[in-house]
Amino acid sequence: MAHPQLRDSGTQQFLKDGAAVLENVTWHELKVNATGHFDIMAEKKLLRSHERVVFQFPLYWYAAPAVLKQWVDEVLAVSDKRWLQEKELGLVVSVGQPLKEYRLGGREAIPLSELLSPFKALAQRLKMQLMPLFIVEQFSYQSEKQRQKLLIDYQQLLELPRDFSFKQRQDWFEDKLKKMIAVSNIKNKKELELVLNTFTARREQLNDLKDDLSFTKKENEFD
Amino acid sequence: MAHPQLRDSGTQQFLKDGAAVLENVTWHELKVNATGHFDIMAEKKLLRSHERVVFQFPLYWYAAPAVLKQWVDEVLAVSDKRWLQEKELGLVVSVGQPLKEYRLGGREAIPLSELLSPFKALAQRLKMQLMPLFIVEQFSYQSEKQRQKLLIDYQQLLELPRDFSFKQRQDWFEDKLKKMIAVSNIKNKKELELVLNTFTARREQLNDLKDDLSFTKKENEFD
Repeated sequence: MAHPQLRDSGTQQFLKDGAAVLENVTWHELKVNATGHFDIMAEKKLLRSHERVVFQFPLYWYAAPAVLKQWVDEVLAVSDKRWLQEKELGLVVSVGQPLKEYRLGGREAIPLSELLSPFKALAQRLKMQLMPLFIVEQFSYQSEKQRQKLLIDYQQLLELPRDFSFKQRQDWFEDKLKKMIAVSNIKNKKELELVLNTFTARREQLNDLKDDLSFTKKENEFD
Repeated sequence: MAHPQLRDSGTQQFLKDGAAVLENVTWHELKVNATGHFDIMAEKKLLRSHERVVFQFPLYWYAAPAVLKQWVDEVLAVSDKRWLQEKELGLVVSVGQPLKEYRLGGREAIPLSELLSPFKALAQRLKMQLMPLFIVEQFSYQSEKQRQKLLIDYQQLLELPRDFSFKQRQDWFEDKLKKMIAVSNIKNKKELELVLNTFTARREQLNDLKDDLSFTKKENEFD
């Protein structure tokens, strides 16, 4: 996590709370020490002990904030380019402008994927698996419902295997709900149980529908 | 100029010497003060007093070194986005790998223009005129002759108006040679005068040739 004014960032505090409830996830804020540099040994140790590395930052002048670039320059500068091989690299980038401005004819005209291409090159060089870009768009304008969706998507990005299936996402959500029910008070428990029942019922309907579809598809193959 | 180890950089010392002989050019090394930040007032004053701003740096992990990003984050962060309007922005980027690796199918596969697109977005946002990217390719492998050519191209980038014509480049070169002759010792003077005479003679031949060409072209227009 790299942010020049982390305390003032509603987006990052929100995501931090979302990450805090997950197991096996380390929220690590990039900070230089008194000499203005990173503790390279500590950073490397942390990197080695995790399977997935997520760079999380607000877009600042069309790139990552300087502190993340400094981290890259100092920590990744080793002769062995394979030490991070096979690990996954995620990017969680928050933007203050509407995403539609970052496309042909938009005010910024340059897609985020192009602006962030140095990370593509970096993943390529280190033979890391680059995950799909995760964008947090104009958080301060989001409704409560949009934020709940964002939180779930974000938690899934941190926890689920790469290229997770729809079924994995459903399992994950059901599991989360059950855990929340287990620790809730009576009133919340009732509400959450209702959500869970609705979710499970819909999920079964959806599966029935899918079976029907695949059956219809198979029949059509003989047309 | 942004470089984490400037003293060790042969490329930058070479370019620095090339810039030093020019008038109206300020070589400014980006350095943070004791608190780890830039003197924002001083940096802004310097910016305002120049017509052309050239970001000069080695490509570090596919982007500018962190200190330049910090400079951008701290110094350009003003509410008035038009204060640099109409100024020119140049990029002098040195790369350690052959340029041909930065293209489709090359080892890096991503073009420098794409990796450096945050500067395109920055120029666009500030309404600055972005100059053509100036690349210093594998300086340490360059021959003496290649370096002389690099030096002249670099000096022209710093001194000549934007979109300079071939004629402007020739005038500039003749002017430079004459100045060198004026301050040379007898032996060098003779050699340089020979270069100047050859250059002037060839230039006249070239102009004759151009006249012939344009005459032929005009005649053909009536075909």
